[in-house]
Amino acid sequence: MGKPTTTRRTSIGSQRNPASEEAILQAAQAILLEGGLQAFSIEAVAKRAKAGKPTIYRWWPSKAALLLDVYHRQKDGVPHPDTGDVREDLVQFLAGLMGFWRDGGGAIFRSIIAEAQSDAGALEALQSYVLSRCLQTGEILRRGQARGTVRNDIDPDLVIELFSSFAWSRLLTSRLEVTRQQVEQIVSAVVDGVAAESQHQ
Amino acid sequence: MGKPTTTRRTSIGSQRNPASEEAILQAAQAILLEGGLQAFSIEAVAKRAKAGKPTIYRWWPSKAALLLDVYHRQKDGVPHPDTGDVREDLVQFLAGLMGFWRDGGGAIFRSIIAEAQSDAGALEALQSYVLSRCLQTGEILRRGQARGTVRNDIDPDLVIELFSSFAWSRLLTSRLEVTRQQVEQIVSAVVDGVAAESQHQ
Repeated sequence: MGKPTTTRRTSIGSQRNPASEEAILQAAQAILLEGGLQAFSIEAVAKRAKAGKPTIYRWWPSKAALLLDVYHRQKDGVPHPDTGDVREDLVQFLAGLMGFWRDGGGAIFRSIIAEAQSDAGALEALQSYVLSRCLQTGEILRRGQARGTVRNDIDPDLVIELFSSFAWSRLLTSRLEVTRQQVEQIVSAVVDGVAAESQHQ
Repeated sequence: MGKPTTTRRTSIGSQRNPASEEAILQAAQAILLEGGLQAFSIEAVAKRAKAGKPTIYRWWPSKAALLLDVYHRQKDGVPHPDTGDVREDLVQFLAGLMGFWRDGGGAIFRSIIAEAQSDAGALEALQSYVLSRCLQTGEILRRGQARGTVRNDIDPDLVIELFSSFAWSRLLTSRLEVTRQQVEQIVSAVVDGVAAESQHQ
């Protein structure tokens, strides 16, 4: 709730009516809750929200774009860690994301990734979503750079993608069970580097 | 050619006849080349290889398992770098994999990942393939540990997954265009760590 949605990027720029937008998103969420992905279609959402299909398509260019917005709202419970320590922020981010997916939140996302492999609209929505997420989560590393604890010659968005990608491949192979120790080891590999002490350049 | 296939793990243990196995794999490859994924089915492969469907299913428990074997044979051109330097091996591995996918080799793999999101047989074949690939590629880091250039307290298979996962997410979002510099930066992030000099633990 209240968290900015990500669709403004993917909309074609038409002004949204906040009340209608909210009604559409709530209808979409209700359909997913009650009938799952099989029940989800722009047609069903339009009917339930008492909105026109053209209105929905004006604001969300594809079914995947609308699904991604609903998915993003469901992620409200996942924290955006800002503990003052990059290592701890990264552990909380990665553990939080994989935990959310493991507890059922991953079903929509994996279906969108699957759809994006054969549907250009879904691919476009997914690309846009991924870029906005990397920008957002890259803040963890940018804050570290500002504090002087993270190298300035690394690209935060590229490095954060290493972590989110790891979560993706675990989601897509149903291997989301990780221990806190494994998450810490992954974070340590990237924060401290895997090189032996003498090898640091 | 000649590289061991990965299916022995997924087969149910029945003895394979090398000549029939080769005929089936070649038929599968020819069908993919000529008709693409749409043309690919166990039935079509059986017909072309003059083999029985039960024979194929005995050796490959799912269409995805057979597809993964064909895919793996096509990857023969992708080098298994062993330059004596972990950093260079990792750069070559990541650049080689993404280049192979970019040049067309990724189409089968992304379709299998998509299928695995709704098909249990495909998921099982994919899991098995991923684990075997991480073991194989993890050798890069294990060799570094043996040479004393890589920390002994990191799990090679877990760390190598960071790199392959990155390639996955780029494949699945059609963002395989990376510069050599970006690949080197990703490798440096993990080898050297992203922490500023003073922060290394």
